[in-house]
Amino acid sequence: MSEMVQLRPNERLDDLCMGGRQIIQRTDEFCFSMDAVLLAHFLHMTGREHVLDLGTGTGVIPLLIADRAREITAVELNPVQAELAARNVRMNNLTDKISVREGDYRDPPALFACGEYDLVFSNPPYRPVTSGALSVGARAAARHEITATLADTVRAAAYALKHGGRLAMVHLPERLGEIVLALHAEGLAVKRLRMVQPRADKAPNLMLIEAVKGTALAGMRHEPALIVRDAKGRYTEEIRSIYGQEM
Amino acid sequence: MSEMVQLRPNERLDDLCMGGRQIIQRTDEFCFSMDAVLLAHFLHMTGREHVLDLGTGTGVIPLLIADRAREITAVELNPVQAELAARNVRMNNLTDKISVREGDYRDPPALFACGEYDLVFSNPPYRPVTSGALSVGARAAARHEITATLADTVRAAAYALKHGGRLAMVHLPERLGEIVLALHAEGLAVKRLRMVQPRADKAPNLMLIEAVKGTALAGMRHEPALIVRDAKGRYTEEIRSIYGQEM
Repeated sequence: MSEMVQLRPNERLDDLCMGGRQIIQRTDEFCFSMDAVLLAHFLHMTGREHVLDLGTGTGVIPLLIADRAREITAVELNPVQAELAARNVRMNNLTDKISVREGDYRDPPALFACGEYDLVFSNPPYRPVTSGALSVGARAAARHEITATLADTVRAAAYALKHGGRLAMVHLPERLGEIVLALHAEGLAVKRLRMVQPRADKAPNLMLIEAVKGTALAGMRHEPALIVRDAKGRYTEEIRSIYGQEM
Repeated sequence: MSEMVQLRPNERLDDLCMGGRQIIQRTDEFCFSMDAVLLAHFLHMTGREHVLDLGTGTGVIPLLIADRAREITAVELNPVQAELAARNVRMNNLTDKISVREGDYRDPPALFACGEYDLVFSNPPYRPVTSGALSVGARAAARHEITATLADTVRAAAYALKHGGRLAMVHLPERLGEIVLALHAEGLAVKRLRMVQPRADKAPNLMLIEAVKGTALAGMRHEPALIVRDAKGRYTEEIRSIYGQEM
């Protein structure tokens, strides 16, 4: 960053620990968490991919994968977050690579082309509206399926992807059954799965999914559980290496 | 065992490490492995359950769970294995609790009652006939879906189970997507899942599934991965405790 960053009230600036890349977030809106970092790190990319990020928030995933992609479309419904994402792209001099579009991905044709993307990322709202206490205000839509359900997200991804294209998603393990069926309904299948456990002796509380469009259901590749903290509560070597590279 | 066990050619006698319980197996047929022991150990049981074991082999699962069930029906297609299972039941004085039926569970009404079981166990053939080199002889049907496919097994379980009854199955992680769909087609859903990893840094090569009949798809409970061996190649404490109790 050569220029001074102008922060407005309720804004904070974080370093992405990646060649000086930075991100502005609002303290009163949803801020990205480890989920986004793990998702950004999950996929092998060649640098030639056309990428779509569904529900980009402040653009954290595009910022983290920019060096590994050819072109990124980042879609966000919340106008406050979409404006921040656009500012973050400008601040990091990535306007040639990342374009932010404000809009509702439940209407894909209004936002992005059909069958043109190699890769779709999504860190979607995790919980159905009926479950759990709803958080209030603008953060609720990032956590609960108020503005987009699982089916909406999968439908948008299926619309955007080329045949053989991949959807990378982070989600709750408890929803795996629903996810397999929602993907199947749109012609996608989970081909790679990794559970994330807070500790070796704790049940997974996150999972990383790679699904492929137009592939057979058979053959889901699993990876060893990713353990976040060791018995003493310190980050494991693998987590430190992921953060070292990208955060 | 009070009496001497008469072994025939190609037979071996193993101790199940469970109050003197023993099992005869044939060296030229499929012998049970860790999969069956982990499956037998996976479910909480109250002692009141009516249980069906689909493809019982020499009866290892019924022998291991007999003390935790009210009544067990054990079905086996292979006449050599079915006869061994019946002998194993007699040898362990469990004829009051376990009844062995030789037959093909692709025709459930011929073998067991509809909607009467609380619990179905299945350690089915893991691999589709089209995949991998087929082993020859009688062992092939235990490993490949020659005599029963995943859909056949799920259909038989759905036929046998009460509403709310549970299917416990051990299978290959790579088939999880197909399993979720096959279960869904018969009105069952995975409610509990545990991956089994040979070591902490190796991908799971087995999984333990508990599915429930007549339940919603949402809410799959995951457990921490079960690690079989530690970094030095020794069985982990958890595996030793499972074998200590049941093997």
